[in-house]
Amino acid sequence: MRLYQRWRRLRLSGLQACSLHTAAVPTPPHWLVERLGFFEELWTAQVKRVASMAQKEHRTIKISLPGGRKVDAVAWNTTPYQLAQQISSKLAGTAVVAQVNGELYDLERPLETDSDLRFLTFDSAEGKAVFWHSSTHVLGAAAEQLLGAVLCQGPSTECGFYHDFFLGKERTVRGSELPVLERICQELAAAAQPFRRLEASRDQLRQLFKDNPFKLRLIEEKITGPKATVYGCGMLVDLCRGPHLRHTGQIGGLKLLTNSSSLWRFSGTPETLQRVSGISFPTAEELKAWEEWREEAELRDHRRIGKEQELFFFHELSPGSCFFLPRGTRVYNALVAFIRAEYTRRGFLEVKTPTLFSTKLWELSGHWEHYREDMFALQPPGTDGPASSQSDHSASHPTDTLALKPMNCPAHCLMFAHRPRSWRELPLRLADFGALHRAEASGSLGGLTRLRRFQQDDAHIFCAPDQLEAEIRGCLDFLWSVYTVLGFSFRLALSTRPSGFLGEPCLWDQAEQVLQQALEEFGEPWDLNPGDGAFYGPKIDVHVRDALDRPHQCGTIQLDFQLPLRFDLQYKGQAGALERPVLIHRAVLGSVERMLGVLAESCAGRWPLWLSPFQVVVIPVGSEQEEYAREAQQSLRAAGLVGDLDADSGLTLSRRVRRAQLAHYNFQFVVGRKEQTKRTVNIRTRDNRQLGERDLAEAVQRLLELQNTRVPNAEEIF
Amino acid sequence: MRLYQRWRRLRLSGLQACSLHTAAVPTPPHWLVERLGFFEELWTAQVKRVASMAQKEHRTIKISLPGGRKVDAVAWNTTPYQLAQQISSKLAGTAVVAQVNGELYDLERPLETDSDLRFLTFDSAEGKAVFWHSSTHVLGAAAEQLLGAVLCQGPSTECGFYHDFFLGKERTVRGSELPVLERICQELAAAAQPFRRLEASRDQLRQLFKDNPFKLRLIEEKITGPKATVYGCGMLVDLCRGPHLRHTGQIGGLKLLTNSSSLWRFSGTPETLQRVSGISFPTAEELKAWEEWREEAELRDHRRIGKEQELFFFHELSPGSCFFLPRGTRVYNALVAFIRAEYTRRGFLEVKTPTLFSTKLWELSGHWEHYREDMFALQPPGTDGPASSQSDHSASHPTDTLALKPMNCPAHCLMFAHRPRSWRELPLRLADFGALHRAEASGSLGGLTRLRRFQQDDAHIFCAPDQLEAEIRGCLDFLWSVYTVLGFSFRLALSTRPSGFLGEPCLWDQAEQVLQQALEEFGEPWDLNPGDGAFYGPKIDVHVRDALDRPHQCGTIQLDFQLPLRFDLQYKGQAGALERPVLIHRAVLGSVERMLGVLAESCAGRWPLWLSPFQVVVIPVGSEQEEYAREAQQSLRAAGLVGDLDADSGLTLSRRVRRAQLAHYNFQFVVGRKEQTKRTVNIRTRDNRQLGERDLAEAVQRLLELQNTRVPNAEEIF
Repeated sequence: MRLYQRWRRLRLSGLQACSLHTAAVPTPPHWLVERLGFFEELWTAQVKRVASMAQKEHRTIKISLPGGRKVDAVAWNTTPYQLAQQISSKLAGTAVVAQVNGELYDLERPLETDSDLRFLTFDSAEGKAVFWHSSTHVLGAAAEQLLGAVLCQGPSTECGFYHDFFLGKERTVRGSELPVLERICQELAAAAQPFRRLEASRDQLRQLFKDNPFKLRLIEEKITGPKATVYGCGMLVDLCRGPHLRHTGQIGGLKLLTNSSSLWRFSGTPETLQRVSGISFPTAEELKAWEEWREEAELRDHRRIGKEQELFFFHELSPGSCFFLPRGTRVYNALVAFIRAEYTRRGFLEVKTPTLFSTKLWELSGHWEHYREDMFALQPPGTDGPASSQSDHSASHPTDTLALKPMNCPAHCLMFAHRPRSWRELPLRLADFGALHRAEASGSLGGLTRLRRFQQDDAHIFCAPDQLEAEIRGCLDFLWSVYTVLGFSFRLALSTRPSGFLGEPCLWDQAEQVLQQALEEFGEPWDLNPGDGAFYGPKIDVHVRDALDRPHQCGTIQLDFQLPLRFDLQYKGQAGALERPVLIHRAVLGSVERMLGVLAESCAGRWPLWLSPFQVVVIPVGSEQEEYAREAQQSLRAAGLVGDLDADSGLTLSRRVRRAQLAHYNFQFVVGRKEQTKRTVNIRTRDNRQLGERDLAEAVQRLLELQNTRVPNAEEIF
Repeated sequence: MRLYQRWRRLRLSGLQACSLHTAAVPTPPHWLVERLGFFEELWTAQVKRVASMAQKEHRTIKISLPGGRKVDAVAWNTTPYQLAQQISSKLAGTAVVAQVNGELYDLERPLETDSDLRFLTFDSAEGKAVFWHSSTHVLGAAAEQLLGAVLCQGPSTECGFYHDFFLGKERTVRGSELPVLERICQELAAAAQPFRRLEASRDQLRQLFKDNPFKLRLIEEKITGPKATVYGCGMLVDLCRGPHLRHTGQIGGLKLLTNSSSLWRFSGTPETLQRVSGISFPTAEELKAWEEWREEAELRDHRRIGKEQELFFFHELSPGSCFFLPRGTRVYNALVAFIRAEYTRRGFLEVKTPTLFSTKLWELSGHWEHYREDMFALQPPGTDGPASSQSDHSASHPTDTLALKPMNCPAHCLMFAHRPRSWRELPLRLADFGALHRAEASGSLGGLTRLRRFQQDDAHIFCAPDQLEAEIRGCLDFLWSVYTVLGFSFRLALSTRPSGFLGEPCLWDQAEQVLQQALEEFGEPWDLNPGDGAFYGPKIDVHVRDALDRPHQCGTIQLDFQLPLRFDLQYKGQAGALERPVLIHRAVLGSVERMLGVLAESCAGRWPLWLSPFQVVVIPVGSEQEEYAREAQQSLRAAGLVGDLDADSGLTLSRRVRRAQLAHYNFQFVVGRKEQTKRTVNIRTRDNRQLGERDLAEAVQRLLELQNTRVPNAEEIF
C-alpha cells in the first residue's frame, strides 16, 4: 500500500538524520488511515459529480482574460490553470492563485459561470498569502508524520507562516528537531502533491476530524453554512477555506525559522500548543536572496549596533527603559535639536509639563476608561492605598491616586485652559519632549522598537476650524522636510470615520474634506482607508520606508474633536463669542528612541555627520605629533564636534586608519611632522577617500557647516 | 493689686481695638494667679540664696574681656551686664546675650568662676536667635492674656519666631485678631519687663505647670536632671532653657506675620494647636527697613513674576510639579544649554537614564532603607500588589515593585558597571538632566523652591584616588564660571567626617586633605564645618548669594566612598589589578527649576538677554510698516531669537514703546518709513536708552553674539 510505504520512508529518513528524542511513530496511526480513506471516498464521488454536471449541462461560458481578451470555456470543466496555459506557459508556471470575479480561486477549480479572470503571482500581497498559507499545510503534514502532531491552525503572516499543533501536555518541539522537520517539508514539496479541494457537509466534516478536538470545536463554532471545504494534500487532510497552490512542487525553497509555544484560547480551557514558523519562496534562489537580506538586517539590527557602538544598553532593573550612553545621547540630542530648530522656524512653542498626574485628569481625558491597563498608577507615600488592609488607622488623607503620563495631550489641554484664550493666539502649537510611560507587557519589549519609557516629538495644535487646512498643510510640509533630511521615503494614508464615531457628522464631513484637500495639494500619492479613523477624529497615517525598504509607522497627523469637548476648551472668537478650538495631535519622528533605532539600522551604523557619535578621530603619525594631535582634538571639541584621538603608538598608522574606518568615523585627521609645522590636517573619509591636507581651523569650520546643514553625504561634499 | 490692674488694662485696650469674637477673659484665671504667686515665692528665695552665697564666699574671680583685658569680679554677684557697662554704654545697650567660657549666659546672670567673657549683639546669628526667642515669650504672654491660650512652645526660626498654643478643640486664631495681639506684644515690650531666670526642682516645676498638660509632658519626658530653669517675664512664667534678653524693652520693633494651625506630636495622641509667627528687631527703624525689603522681595517673588510674565503655572491635578509655559521653557532650555556647553568644554559626557527602577536598585544603593518615605513607589499594572486583597487569584507574577528615581547616582553606577572599565577611561564624568521625583509633603510645596518633580544639572565623576584633587579643582572652577555668568557671589564650606562615618579613617584623612588643598588653591575664603559631612564622605557646600544678598544652597561637591562599594565598582588599574574608583556627586545649578526661580527673583524679571523670553519686540510706527516689521520679526526668529511684534495700531508709538519697556523687553526695534526704505531698525533698550538706527541684519548678528557670549549687560554694550 502506497500510504504505508511513503510513511515508512519519511520516518526512516527522519530517524537516520539525527537521533530524535521523540516517541517513534512507526506506522501511520489508524485515525489517519481512516481519515484519508474517507477523504478519498468523498473525493472520488465529487470528481464523478462534477464530471457528470459538466457533461449534462455542457454550457459554454465567456471568460474575460487579463488584457481584455475574451475566450469561451466549458462550465464545470475548464480551469483557470488551463486558461493560463493558453496565455503563456510562463504565466501557468508562476501563477499562484486565480481571481474570479474578484474572488480567489484555486487554479484547478473548474469555472462555473461567465467570469472576469485574473492571475496572481508570488509578487502580490495576496499571492504571497496563498503561497505561505499553502506552505504551512506542508509543515502541518510533516509535523503530523514526524511528531504525531494534532494540528490546530496554520496561517500565513506578513513574512512567512507558522503552524500551531498539540504534542501532548509535556512534549515540546526541540531546536534540534527543526532541521529534520525542514527536510521532510522539502521532500513533501519536491513530491509535488496536489492540493485537492473537497466540499463536505457538516456530518462528513465531523467524521473526518473526529480524532482532532481542535478542528471539532472549529466546526461547531465557526462553520455556519451546511457545507465547508476540506483540502487534501498528500497524506494530509485539513479543514481549510483555501485557496492553495496547485501542488506543493511550486514551493521551490522552504526554511523553518523558530520553535516556540503558543496558547490555544479559542474557547473552553486554554491549551498550550507548539508553534513552528517558517518562510518559503517559489525558487531556491529567492530563498537564498532572502537569507542574505536577513543576514544583512541582523547585521544592521539596532540592538547589535547599539552594543557595538556603545550607544545604549538595557538593564533588568529597569525593564523597557533604555540607558543611553554618551554616544547614544549625542545622537538623541542631535535629533531633538533638529526638531527644535524646525519648531522655531515653524512657530511651534516648546513647553514642559509634569510626569505624574492625578487620575482625575485621566478620567477627564478618557484615558482612565480606555487606557488604564497600560498606565503606571501609584498612591503617593504617606497615604493608605485603597487596597490597604490597615483599616484600624483610618486613612484621613484624601490624596488622589497618581499615574505616569502615557501621552502629553491632556497636560496641553490644561495649559490651553489655564487662562482665557483669544482668537489672536490661534493657532497655538504646543510641543513637548516629555518622557512618557506605558506599561507594555514584558514579553513584547524588544530593543528600542517597543519601550515602557520613551519621548516623542509630540505637539498639539489648537486652532480655529478655518485654520485647519493651513495647519494640516504645515504638518505635511514638516513631515516632508524631516524625512527628506533623514533619507526616508514615505506614503500617506487618510483614515476616515469608523462606525461608532463620536461627534457631529457635518464636522466629520468638513474635516475629512479638509484633510483630503491638503493631501491633494501636497501632491504625493496617498491611500484612502475608509472607516479606519479613530472614533474621535480622522487622521493621516505616515508609513516611512527606510534604506532597506522596510516600513515603519512613525509620524501621525490626527484630528481630535473629543478632547476639546472633554476639557471644555474655548477661546474668544473674533466676533466676541466663545468658540471651541479643533485639536491636532501630530508627531514626525514619533518616539525619538524608536527613530534612533530605525536610523541606526537604516544607515547600518554609518551615521551621517550631523548625527554621528564618531565624527572625527585625530591620528598622530608618531608620538612627537601627539601634542599637536591633542590641540586638533581640542579645536574640534571646542566647536562642539566629536573629536577622538587614537594615539596608540603600538599600532601602525595604516592599522589605526583602518580601525577608525571600521568604527565608521566619518573623517580621520592624520597629523605628521609636516601637518604639525603648517597647522594643517590630512583628511581621509570612512570610505578611505583621501581629501588631502587642509588648514585645521578651516577644516573645523567646514565640518561645522556640514553638520549644521544636516547633509547626508558630508564625506562626499567636504 | 498690680497684676489685676495690668490684666484689665490689656483686656480693655484689646477689646476696644476691635470687636473680638472670642470668649472674653475678664480677669486673670486662678491658675495664672497661683502660678505667678508660687514663682514670686521661689524667686524671692533664690535671690536671697544667691545674695547670701555671694556674701559668704566673697570670692574674687578673674574675667577676661573681649580684646584681652582682664578684670576682677565677685563670684555670684558681678553680672556680664555690669562688665558690659564698664566697657561702654553702647555695648551694654546693644548686647543681647553673653558668652561665658563658650556657654550662652543671660546678661543679668551672676558669674560664678574665672571666665572668658564675650558679648553677642543682634548682628550675630546666635544673638538673633536669643533676640527672637525672647520675643516669642512676649507673644506667648500676649496670647495667654488676650486669648486665654495654653502655651506649648515658641522657638526662634531662621527669620523670626513663632509660638504654638492651644485654644480648645474648636477655637482658632483669626486674621483680624493678629493686629490686637501685635499691639499687646508691643505694649508688653514697651513695659520693659525683665526676664528672671529661676532654677526649680522637678516637684516645683510640676507645681508651677500643673494646669498645662503640654509642659507637664515635657517635664516628664525631656527634663533629665534634678533641676531645670524657668523664666518669669511680666505675668508670664514659662519652662525654658534660656538665655534671654535682659528685658522686653530691648525689643524696639515687633510685627506679627501669620496665623496657622500646627500639630503637637510630642507623644500620645496628636493635638491641633494654633501657631502665630512674627519678627522683631532692636529698633523700629530696623523693622521698617525689613518691611521695605520684604515688599521688594514680594515684588520679586518668582511666583508673581512667573504669573505676570507667563513663565509657568501650577495645577492641582499635579501638585508639586511645574508646568513651564513657552517663555519659561525658553529660560529653562537656555540654562540647560549653558550647562551643556560647559560640559562639552570640560569633558563631561551627557547620558540619559530611565525614570522607573526596580526597588532592588534602591535596596542596593541604600535609598530604600534611608529615603523610602520620600519616594514614589508602584506596582506595575497586571500584578497584584502586596497589599491587594485578592488572595483567591494567586499572584503568579513575580514582578518587582518599581520606584521613580529621586536621584541619578544609582543609575550612573549601573552605567559604570555595565561593562569592564579601564584606568584609561577615568575620570569618567557622566552628566544627566533626568527628571527626579521626591514625595515632598504637600504642605511644604511652594513655587519652584520645593517641588516633587525637578531636574538637576547632575553629574557623577568616577575617578582614581590620585585624580581626586584635579577633579575637585575642576568642579570649583566650573562653579566659579557659572556663578559669575549668573551674577552670584558665593561662599564655600568644607564639611568633614561626622561621628558614625563609614569607611576607613585613612581614606577620609586623605580626602579631607585633598578637598582642603583644592579650596586653598582656589583662593576664595571658605569655612570649615567640622563633623558636618555626610556619613559616606566629606563635601563642599556652596552658598550662593543673589542680587538681594539672600542665601541659596544650590551647588554641591560631595565625595562618596560608599556607593562604589555598594555597587562593587571596579576598574582595571595601570598595573593590571582591579581598583575601586572614588565617586564625586556634583551639581552647579542644583535643581534647574529652583535656579530659575532664584534667577527670576534676583533679576526681578528683567532677564539678561541670553536668558530672556522677551529679547526684542518690533514696533512699526504705522500700519504701512507692518509688513516690514514682520520681516524684521522673521529675521530675529530665523536666528533663534525671541522676536515679538506690537502692531497694535490702537496705541500710539510712545505708548507701545513704554508697554514694551514695562514688559522688560531687552530691546525695542522701532521701524518707520525711513527704516523700511533703508532696511534698518531704530533700537531702544528697556532702560529707554536710544541706540539709534542700525542695519537690520547687523543688529540681529550683534544680538546673537551678545546672546551666545551670555553677557549680563547686553543693553549697555550693544
